Amino acid sequence: MTNRIPPRSGTAFELKKGQLLTVVDPEGEQVSDLVAYNAEDTREYLSSGRSIDYAGRMFLTTGDILYSNRSVPMLKIVEDEVGRHDFSLTPCSRDTFRIIYGDKDPHHGCQGNLENALAPYGIGPDAIPTAFNVFMHVAVDSDSGEIKVLPPKSKPGQKTVFRAEMDLIIAMTACSAGQSNNFRYKPIDFRIDNAA
Amino acid sequence: MTNRIPPRSGTAFELKKGQLLTVVDPEGEQVSDLVAYNAEDTREYLSSGRSIDYAGRMFLTTGDILYSNRSVPMLKIVEDEVGRHDFSLTPCSRDTFRIIYGDKDPHHGCQGNLENALAPYGIGPDAIPTAFNVFMHVAVDSDSGEIKVLPPKSKPGQKTVFRAEMDLIIAMTACSAGQSNNFRYKPIDFRIDNAA
Repeated sequence: MTNRIPPRSGTAFELKKGQLLTVVDPEGEQVSDLVAYNAEDTREYLSSGRSIDYAGRMFLTTGDILYSNRSVPMLKIVEDEVGRHDFSLTPCSRDTFRIIYGDKDPHHGCQGNLENALAPYGIGPDAIPTAFNVFMHVAVDSDSGEIKVLPPKSKPGQKTVFRAEMDLIIAMTACSAGQSNNFRYKPIDFRIDNAA
Repeated sequence: MTNRIPPRSGTAFELKKGQLLTVVDPEGEQVSDLVAYNAEDTREYLSSGRSIDYAGRMFLTTGDILYSNRSVPMLKIVEDEVGRHDFSLTPCSRDTFRIIYGDKDPHHGCQGNLENALAPYGIGPDAIPTAFNVFMHVAVDSDSGEIKVLPPKSKPGQKTVFRAEMDLIIAMTACSAGQSNNFRYKPIDFRIDNAA
């Protein structure tokens, strides 16, 4: 069963160890901010710094492991039709839209959507870390370190599949930031399957 | 007064709004992992993801602001003789030495030193985020995203100066990871001054 995350919204759900999470970009060039917590102890969360260090790469893809802040594997990327994601930026928020876009009456962004989705699990706003931004295309200049948020490489229907390495609470969005999706706010689809 | 952080150790202290923190590399090619918390509410902490997003650059230097997870300025870099630091990796830890270096009986690393230094402030191990790694030189390949930890660019006696933008609890280390300091474990010096 495919679930749809409508434009500029988010959701949260449990993903059991061994289950597969397939994230699909139904229309292409959209981003999904993904965060994860140990279902047994939500103080354990997805850590960009640990994952990048152990992979030796900023950009993770098939075969790479997303580690927790306690250096325990949380998710493994088992299939990846897109091959480019970001793990350096926090979810867009009221402040992002105020500081970067200059919006006077800013949208609450992925941060607000993740906060609302995670509240029923007792996970508060301060516990939302740097997200694994599925399909997000951030170019980095090797010399200056300058970053540019480019349109995602994902084409309509392309997917990335994650396997849960522990029992997790996952929250995901259909991204609210124009730069991330080429200013066409689109939905994100996902599916949960038991391992074959 | 200059304080010395001995090799492979750490310390924590309060830094009041407006005070200047000068971090000195006395022997050159050493790294100091730095984390910061709002002294009034330690759930507010230094956020690599927010800071990189707002700066539009992975590598921060003079004039750049280190933001909290709540998008509030915590520290501003007001002087920087080195110009290259890392904000993508978590502190080295028992697990770092086990996973990356293959150590059988690993050192507790900067993570352990930060945990010990922060315990008196009621800040626990899970609250230690991706650090601002002063003088750490991480090269990033634009295409593959591959990272390489290179010897720091800091020469003996060079410094970077931060100004506190709010009342803070700071923890800092003299880094324990061989890759970060060219396998010569050295001390780090720091000084606190009131604004002129």
